[in-house]
Order: sequence, then C-alpha cells, then structure tokens
Amino acid sequence: MAAKLEGIFTPPLVPLDDRGAINEAELRRFLNWLIENGVHGLYPNGSTGEFTRLNAEERRRIVKIACEEARGRVPVLAGAAEANVKETLAACETYAQYGARAVALIPPFYFRLNPESVYAYFAEIARDTPIDVTLYNIPAFTSPIDIPTIRRLVEFPRVIGIKDSTGDVAFMERMISAVRPVRPDFAFLTGWEAVLVPMLLIGCNGGTHASSNAIPEVIRKLYDLTRASRFDEAMKLQFRVLELFDTMLNPFEFPDGFRAAAEMRGFSFGRGRQPMTASQQVDRAALQSVLRCILADFGLVEPPAEGCAPRTGLTSRDKVAQIVFEVMQELEQRGVICAKR
Amino acid sequence: MAAKLEGIFTPPLVPLDDRGAINEAELRRFLNWLIENGVHGLYPNGSTGEFTRLNAEERRRIVKIACEEARGRVPVLAGAAEANVKETLAACETYAQYGARAVALIPPFYFRLNPESVYAYFAEIARDTPIDVTLYNIPAFTSPIDIPTIRRLVEFPRVIGIKDSTGDVAFMERMISAVRPVRPDFAFLTGWEAVLVPMLLIGCNGGTHASSNAIPEVIRKLYDLTRASRFDEAMKLQFRVLELFDTMLNPFEFPDGFRAAAEMRGFSFGRGRQPMTASQQVDRAALQSVLRCILADFGLVEPPAEGCAPRTGLTSRDKVAQIVFEVMQELEQRGVICAKR
Amino acid sequence: MAAKLEGIFTPPLVPLDDRGAINEAELRRFLNWLIENGVHGLYPNGSTGEFTRLNAEERRRIVKIACEEARGRVPVLAGAAEANVKETLAACETYAQYGARAVALIPPFYFRLNPESVYAYFAEIARDTPIDVTLYNIPAFTSPIDIPTIRRLVEFPRVIGIKDSTGDVAFMERMISAVRPVRPDFAFLTGWEAVLVPMLLIGCNGGTHASSNAIPEVIRKLYDLTRASRFDEAMKLQFRVLELFDTMLNPFEFPDGFRAAAEMRGFSFGRGRQPMTASQQVDRAALQSVLRCILADFGLVEPPAEGCAPRTGLTSRDKVAQIVFEVMQELEQRGVICAKR
Amino acid sequence: MAAKLEGIFTPPLVPLDDRGAINEAELRRFLNWLIENGVHGLYPNGSTGEFTRLNAEERRRIVKIACEEARGRVPVLAGAAEANVKETLAACETYAQYGARAVALIPPFYFRLNPESVYAYFAEIARDTPIDVTLYNIPAFTSPIDIPTIRRLVEFPRVIGIKDSTGDVAFMERMISAVRPVRPDFAFLTGWEAVLVPMLLIGCNGGTHASSNAIPEVIRKLYDLTRASRFDEAMKLQFRVLELFDTMLNPFEFPDGFRAAAEMRGFSFGRGRQPMTASQQVDRAALQSVLRCILADFGLVEPPAEGCAPRTGLTSRDKVAQIVFEVMQELEQRGVICAKR
Repeated sequence: MAAKLEGIFTPPLVPLDDRGAINEAELRRFLNWLIENGVHGLYPNGSTGEFTRLNAEERRRIVKIACEEARGRVPVLAGAAEANVKETLAACETYAQYGARAVALIPPFYFRLNPESVYAYFAEIARDTPIDVTLYNIPAFTSPIDIPTIRRLVEFPRVIGIKDSTGDVAFMERMISAVRPVRPDFAFLTGWEAVLVPMLLIGCNGGTHASSNAIPEVIRKLYDLTRASRFDEAMKLQFRVLELFDTMLNPFEFPDGFRAAAEMRGFSFGRGRQPMTASQQVDRAALQSVLRCILADFGLVEPPAEGCAPRTGLTSRDKVAQIVFEVMQELEQRGVICAKR
Repeated sequence: MAAKLEGIFTPPLVPLDDRGAINEAELRRFLNWLIENGVHGLYPNGSTGEFTRLNAEERRRIVKIACEEARGRVPVLAGAAEANVKETLAACETYAQYGARAVALIPPFYFRLNPESVYAYFAEIARDTPIDVTLYNIPAFTSPIDIPTIRRLVEFPRVIGIKDSTGDVAFMERMISAVRPVRPDFAFLTGWEAVLVPMLLIGCNGGTHASSNAIPEVIRKLYDLTRASRFDEAMKLQFRVLELFDTMLNPFEFPDGFRAAAEMRGFSFGRGRQPMTASQQVDRAALQSVLRCILADFGLVEPPAEGCAPRTGLTSRDKVAQIVFEVMQELEQRGVICAKR
Repeated sequence: MAAKLEGIFTPPLVPLDDRGAINEAELRRFLNWLIENGVHGLYPNGSTGEFTRLNAEERRRIVKIACEEARGRVPVLAGAAEANVKETLAACETYAQYGARAVALIPPFYFRLNPESVYAYFAEIARDTPIDVTLYNIPAFTSPIDIPTIRRLVEFPRVIGIKDSTGDVAFMERMISAVRPVRPDFAFLTGWEAVLVPMLLIGCNGGTHASSNAIPEVIRKLYDLTRASRFDEAMKLQFRVLELFDTMLNPFEFPDGFRAAAEMRGFSFGRGRQPMTASQQVDRAALQSVLRCILADFGLVEPPAEGCAPRTGLTSRDKVAQIVFEVMQELEQRGVICAKR
Repeated sequence: MAAKLEGIFTPPLVPLDDRGAINEAELRRFLNWLIENGVHGLYPNGSTGEFTRLNAEERRRIVKIACEEARGRVPVLAGAAEANVKETLAACETYAQYGARAVALIPPFYFRLNPESVYAYFAEIARDTPIDVTLYNIPAFTSPIDIPTIRRLVEFPRVIGIKDSTGDVAFMERMISAVRPVRPDFAFLTGWEAVLVPMLLIGCNGGTHASSNAIPEVIRKLYDLTRASRFDEAMKLQFRVLELFDTMLNPFEFPDGFRAAAEMRGFSFGRGRQPMTASQQVDRAALQSVLRCILADFGLVEPPAEGCAPRTGLTSRDKVAQIVFEVMQELEQRGVICAKR
C-alpha cells in the first residue's frame, strides 16, 4: 500500500509569459525551488493554480510538468476537476500515466448541489478511477462536502484523503472522529495555514498551503516544529505566518497576493488572467510594500528602499496606513494637496 | 441599430444520446418546436443548458445548431463564458460568425470576485468584442454584478442588456432607475418566471425562462396577457406557473425538474451528466407524477394512469404526499409494512 | 367578524425628549398628523418604533397613546413581542383592553429557531390570545416563518394576517397560494415599499411602511393609484419612492434615515437611543442634505439653502457625491487642500 | 489591579418551577454544585441562561443569587445586556453592588448594526461603567464585533476581556495578535468547547462553556490537562467532549440539549420557556437516551435500562439510529409494522 499523504503540499502558482501563455521554463524552475526548499509534495491545478482560468489542455500540461520535475522526489497530487464525470475520469487516467500519486477533486462547481448529488458524483468517479482520489472541500467556492457524505465516500478504497479549506478546527475534529476509526490510513490535510499548528495538534496529517509558494521553508519549519512538539516556538512562528497570510489573502483578489509575494522570491509570474483596473493596480503597488516589509522581517528578501512603517498587528490597519501614506506623498508631489509644514 | 431584446427567450435543455453525447437530431427538433410554440428567442449555453457540464467544443456546436435552426426567425443570445478573457473573446468571435444576435456573459465563476474585478473582466471584453454583450447576474452561482458596476458597464455601447436571475423585483427597479435614463435602449430580462408579471409591470423587457422548455406556449401567453394589461387573467396564470415552477425547481437538482417536465412534451433528453443515486432516482419517479398532474391541468399532457391526488397549493406538501403515497404502496406490496384494513 | 386589515399602516417612530424619555406630546401630535395625512392604520412597536430599545413599560405606554389618538378613526395593530409566551400573552391582554384591533408578533428573537419551534411559539399564543394576531416575518432580524409553518398557523382563527418584510414578491405569491384558498379573510401586508405596486398587483392587501413616517400622503397615493389600476402613474411614483426609501434605508443605521426625513416634516424626534460616533454624525449631516433634496422634489419641504446637486438615479453615487462635495468644501475652507482654480 | 479572568466559566442554566418561575432553591443548589465541581467562575445571564426569555427583574435576581452563592470563592461575570445604553448602565451599577467581578455585554441585538455603531454602543458604556466590561462576540445571534472594533475598544481600561463564541481559531489568533501587544492583561475566552484544547494552545485564557452545566468536572479536567501540556490525554478527552457537545447542540433547540444532560446529573430545571410541539417532545425523549449513553461512558450517570446502541463517531447518524430504533420498536408493538423474524 502506498504511504499516507503527509506534510506540506504546495499548490503552485502558474508563471505566464508576456502573451499570457504558460511560461514552462519558469514553472520548472519554480517547482524545483519549492522542492529544494522542503515542501513534501506538489498539488498542481489547485485553486491557487487557478485551474478554472486554464483550459483542459493547459491543465494536463501543468500536471505533466509537475510530475516530470518531481522526479519521484516528492508525490504529486493532481487537481483533476473537469466539466463532467467522463472528462474527469479521462483526466484521472492521464494523470495516473504521468505518475501522479493521487488526484484531488472538488465537487462540481457553478451549480450548488445537495449532499446526495455530491455523493453521487464522487461515488461514480471512485468506482472507476485508476488512481487514488483525495476529496477537496472548499465551500467558499463550491458545494460543501458534509460529514455524513465523507463517511459514505470513505467506503471506497480509492478515496484516500481529504483536503479541507474551511479552516474550521471543530469541523476537522468531526471528520477525524467520523473517519479514523474505520479508515486509519485516511489522510486529513488542511488548506488554512492560519491554523496549521492547532490543526496538526488535533490530528491533521499536513496541509496544502498557498503561502508555501512564497515561504516554503517557513511553512516547512512550522510543520517540523509542531511535529517535534515544540509548541512555543511553533506558535510564535504561527502568528508571523498569520500576518503574512492575511496580508496576501484579504486585500487582494485570490491568489494575486500570494503571486505578489512569490515574485519577491525571484520568480516571474507575469500578469494573471483575471484583469485588473487601474485603481486595482495602484492598490497592488501599495500592498506590495507591506508584503515586502513582512517578508524582510523573515529575512527572506531585502526591505523596500523607502523603509518600513511600523506595523500594528492589525493587518487591515497596516495596509491602509501604507496606502494612505503613499497616496498622500503622491498627491503632495502632484500639488493636489498642500504640503504639510 | 439592432432592435432591443424583448420577449421570452428559452435557455434550451440539451438532449443527450445513450452514450451521453449531444443528440443533435433531437436538439434540432426541440429548438424548432420551441420556436413554433412562440418563444421570441433562444439562449443556448445558459445555466439550464448546463454549459459547465459541456466542454468548449460542445458549447460551440450547440450555438451553431441554435443559429442554424433559428434561421433568422428569432434572435440567438449565445452563452459565451469560457475559462478566461481571451477564450471568451474567441467564443464571441465565433458566435458572431454563426449569426448570433448577442452573447450572454456571467462573471467568472468558482472564485468570488469583488465588484472592481467583475468590472475589470467585463470591461476588457466589452472593449474588444465583435458582438453585442448582455450581462448575466446570477449570484446564486457566481459573483454578483452590483448596480454601481452595471452603471459603469453600460458606458460601453456593446453592452446592451442584462439578465437577472435573482427574482428580486426591487433590485430590478434599481437597475432600471440607474440605467434607463442614460441608456433607453438597454434591455432588462428577468430569469425568474415566478414573478414575470410584476417584472413586466415595472418595466422589464422580457425574460429568459427555464420553464419555457416545458411550457413555451404558456410562458408566451403570460407575456402577451401582461403586455395587453390583462392583469387579472395574467395573475391567474402567474399563480399556476408558480406552482409548476416551484415543483420543477425545488425538489430536483437544477435543471433536472425542467428536463423531467420537458420530456413529457415528447422529447428525449437522455440521462443528465450529473449522476444520481438510486434514492434520487426513486424520488424523481415520484416527483414526475406530480409534474404530470400539473401539466395535465394545463391541458398539455395526459394525466397519469393512476390519477392525481388533490393538490393543496403548498407545493412541498404535495410532493411529500405523493412520494409518501407511492412509497407506502410499494412497501405494502413488498410485504415490508402491514396492509391497512 | 371584524373587517380584513387593508391599506397603509404606519409603524410610528417614537419622539424622545432631551433626557431620552418618550416625548408624549410630540408623539400624540405626530400620530394625529399621520392619520390626517391618510394612513389607514397605526402599527406601534414595530421595528421602526425600535421596540427592542424600549422597556416593557414604555411599550405599553406607546400602545396606549396610539389607541387613544386613533380614537376609532383607524385600527391599531400593536406590536406585542415580549420576553416569553407568558409575558407576550399579558401584553395581548393589555392591548385588547386598550382597544387595539390586533397584535403583531415576530418570532422570538436572539436565538435562531427551527420552524417547528416557531410554530410551537405562535401556536401557544394563538390558542390563548384574547385578541387577533398578525404574524410578522422579518428574517433579516429574527427567525424566519416559512410557508409550511404559516399554513399550519392559519388553522387558528385568531391568526388573521401576516406582515412580510422580505420584499420577496415570489414569496408573497407562495404565501397567498398556500393560504388564500383556506382562509380568504386572511390579510397579507408587505413591509417593503420599494415594491408596493407589484405587491398590490399580485394580491397583497396593503403594507406597513417605515417611509410613511416621512411621506404618509405619498405612500397613500401610491396605494390609491394602484388600487385604481392607474399603473403608469403608480409606477412613476413607485420609482420616486424607491429613491427616497433607498436613501433612508441604506446609508443610515435603521431606522435613523426615516427619522431624519420625518424630522424635516416638522417633528422633533430627539436623539435616538442607539449612540452615534462623531464620524457617524458628520455622515448624517451630509445625508440629510440629499434627503432634503429628494423631499423637496416631492414638494413637501423647502430645498436646502445651498441648492441641490443633480442626482443620477444611482442612490449610492448621489450620496457619495454629496458627502465628497461637502467634505471638499470644508477641507478647502480649512486650508487642508488647495483651492481649485 | 484585579486578576485576569482565567479558566472555565459556567453560564448556568436557570431552573424553573412548575409555574415557570425561577426555582431559587434549585438554582442555589446547582450553582454550589458547579463550584464544588471545579469551575473557575460563573457567568449568569449568558445565552445558555436564556437571558432574553427572562424579564429585567428576573435577570437582576439571578445575578444576585449567583453573587451570593459564589461567596468570593469564584468570580461572577454578569450578563448585563438590557434594552438600551441607559438601562444597561443601570444594570452595571447594580451588578457592581452585588459584587460581580465584571459584566459581559453582547452588541445590541435584533437590529444588525455596522461596526461603527457597535463601537459607539460599547464606547458609551465603557466610558461610564462602574464595573469592568467583557465583550461578547456571538455573530450567530447578533451583530459581530470585528477586529478593528475590538482594537478600538481595548483603549478603554474598563474593557478587560472578550468572549468569542464563533469557535474560529484563526479569528481568535487575529484578536490576540491585535490586542495582546497593547493590552497584555486582556483576557480571551472561547465559548466553543469543541476546540477548547487548540484555543488554549494558541493563547486563550479560558472559556465559558454551556457543556460545563452538565460535565463541570470534565471541562475542568480538559482545561487542566492542556495547561499541563499533556496534549495526548487532552485531545483524547477533547474528542469525547466533542461528541457530547455536538449531541447537546445540534438536534435540540439551544440550550435544551444542555438542559437535558444537566438534568441527568440530578437537577430539576423544569420545562423551558420556549414551548415545544408534541413531535419535538417525542424527539427529545429519544435524544435523551443517546445523551445518557454518552454520559454513562464518562462514568457520570447510569446507562439507560434498555442498554446503549453502539455509536459510530458520526453524531448525526447515532441520533437517527437511536430514534429509528425506538420508533421501530414502538411501531412494531402497536402492530403498525410487521415484526422482523
């Protein structure tokens, strides 16, 4: 039997070139850097990989590249959601051939399905899939997978784990309570790095974290400290990861804040496929300064030339302070507002 | 300038064959029947057409067929949502060549976007599209388009209308208030046939209604009565349409109830692409009897052989009554429960 | 049998004096003015009357005053929600003695109850009440009353009507469908003046409208025009009422915008019991100018001295424009920003 | 300076007598039992105490009794929410005289307030209160208190802590991040015993837990084990508490499941003030058996005479199984269904 999924899986951002196509060379370089920085696995075609903004051919190409770069060093968990059961099963077939360890599947999106239909969808796939399946519960974006449905689905041996992106610790406990007695091999991964330490404490096997695109070594260290029961150090780091996570998550459209931070680590992701207005681009520039300051505190990048404003621990306030500061400077320079004396 | 979009547009269900592929012959026959029964236009690749369960090639094929069958008799409003701006624009180009009157576009789905991003997405398309665009607001399934965003978007001449599926009459009034003074040519369509009469009263130009797959002549009559200010007759019919609509909408997964009713009109839609469990199939059979009874009251189909139970005006109660009745009979026949004396 | 509840009921705002106590003289003057301006009934202790910010004794006193001022000219529908069944029944008893026509009851608030518990609560009251009861469905603030529950409750003869504040026209149709066949005497009132015309068209008997505190004669006219089937005139007025309603509802904390507008009609309501920050008070001042401009267009008050900016039909934009305009002027005067040339 | 609030606070259920009045003798006996079983404090007039179903006089009486029974052994945190600022301040005054350690205040309920108004309300109280104040964030029932608002409110020295009932661990981390640097004395209490262990791990000072009405010694032990960093034992107990908590919380109307379990410990709470239908009473009887089985596993009560069905770890399934089991037995005895052979 294959080993249980454990540790930190990165859902990689996808570098694009000037024409908006996949930048394959940069993607390969990025995946290698992630593995070298300690992540335990790759999860291409996750939400962070913006799989819904790619076409079916691009999604296959990305999994192929991920499997090639993994080269057996780390397992690949391949997002395989397609338009319907038949096409999802075809993707499963392909990803098995590429050498993926398993596929990850969200419930069908756009329509909101009731639990019985969510079960029907996964059951039809679980019966016929040639590769292990992990469920992906992300109710912010698609129909939820509730606990009775999970309990029914774990009766399929091909269903080997679940990723949950709610960040709800009690929900994770409930899943573990319902499933572990009947399937001790089943893997529980959290998608919410804000609570990685408590999630590991209560019994999670790891996580798939957008943040690990920007700070793979830090997320890995957070995992290792917790596994070693060094909770004091782990919680100190958890709070610092929280600040960065909130800054990447909230003021940006997902996953653009994670892209902005990962770029600072030396990669070129190009312009995302979701267009931005001029006003959003102005915002993004201001927010990048805050991100750079936080990353500089980790010692991972140089601080901005103009220096860093003191942060308050209240993320939203820091962002506004930084934006206001920069906008005021700009307006003053343009003579729109009077200079302070 | 092209005529304003007005009247009843049908978002056609897609007949599938035994292998789950598009049943082209049946689709053509169905589209003709719709036009002959009075609908003012076709809206392929709507939610009712389950565009997210089709692949990109199938979506193109369906629009092509719709344009061919329309043969200039009615306008075609083609759902053109694809994975990203570039691919959506390519679909716009293709549908313009096919002869569609306009395309209909939902905001990008899966991710939830803020209003500025919704604007950015539509603006980029509106600048470059070779064909008129209608917006499609359906917050139950994807990011909402709020009124300030609509107001900004109507500054693009290519944006010529909006379909709103909230059924919120006050929201429709707010849209009309904000837009009509600056764009008197702009078309407002509702997607909620439960309130078609009041929507037309307040100034809507028509609707795109899933129900018109099953009862095109009735929805057309509802429109004509209201346009003729025959409100008493219109409201009597509105209440009957409401009963049918609620029965097709609520106990089924969308749009399966509409498919079940349309099948009774003599078309073969095959098994939908969203799988069903055995228990859902049992449910569906019971619900079909209720649907058949309602359609029989319209004089559109024969009543079921076993006759119709009295309905109460409380849709959910009727459905349960019918299900319980049939289940009890079945259990009794199988000897699971004792016969009543 | 008592006449069915019909027409426009005003849920009166409560004037307070300098010490925050009920200003009885002003309340009496205000209630008389409402009746003289054509409202069909009074609904003291509604949400607009901020009954939750009063104590039990104050609520009784307000109903007493309303009954005294009504003097049989109009019916009084008395909000009678208290902490529990026993105390609510005691209020029913008292209000019956005061001469109220009926009481209005929301489901218990704070806790969210399931439908069975909502039924249990109303059923216990309906069995023992000495006065007719109207249900009040306001899911924005407390547990909803769903349609099967309404259907069960109308089996109590003492339950004679429902006020619904959702503004959901299809929901109103569903209630009417479920109830009217078994209880043709049952009254349906809407609490959403944004859609009063369509609500009356589909069969509502009237409404209880916060706006009628500020524009009783206009809401009455809206009702009369619709009842006379003069829909074109009615809809023109409906759109103007919508603009005012949205301006009173959205940028203020409920019901402070309605209070601000009613004050302009010549009444002194004092400072509400919900405190405001300094920044909210600045906002309120700017918003009052917009309200004054809208009321001036109705010919009901004088326009502001500084004149009115053109409005756009997009309420939120107008408000911001007005605020920005006033703030900019202020900043310029204080020398904070440079004067435009 | 008074000691920081720490440990387990019980929000006591209120025993009622046959006529529905407060059963003072039983309340005193119950409060003593709680203190003797190790809880660190009492929190009368919490949600579990159903303060909204009491009148103002009853609320005062309960706090008085709690202070008398505490006799300085444990601090009393008194729920002091009344109809408005003035009456809430009057309650604060009274509870200070009774000897309460602090009051606990939810944002005003019924109306949904924006953050600025939530701030205005608490600020007005914090300025004038004669007793320390803890905030109580319970967005399921009333307006949320967001983190920027909390950050503003901790500038008042009288605001000394917050209870949060969301169970959201990341939110708790965010509060701690924003507040602890400026107010190291500030107390963070969770109201969600399903995650007490992780909450303590990340830095919470304790909790106020409805479950401690039924199992005060167990919740205390959960606290002690975690404080002693005995996480393996703590998590084993956490999972068992979760099962009980979910069974008390979900299938019942809050807080009736907690009442049902506390009754088994030898107290008489009478019939709650929220009425129940006959069908709810049947349900409750079945659920009590499940509760008794769980409590028996803790060794706190005798198991039911008829024995316990095996539980599955999936709470909802267990409940249904038990109900179905009992209903089937009943139906069989009545001859409604055929006996199994």
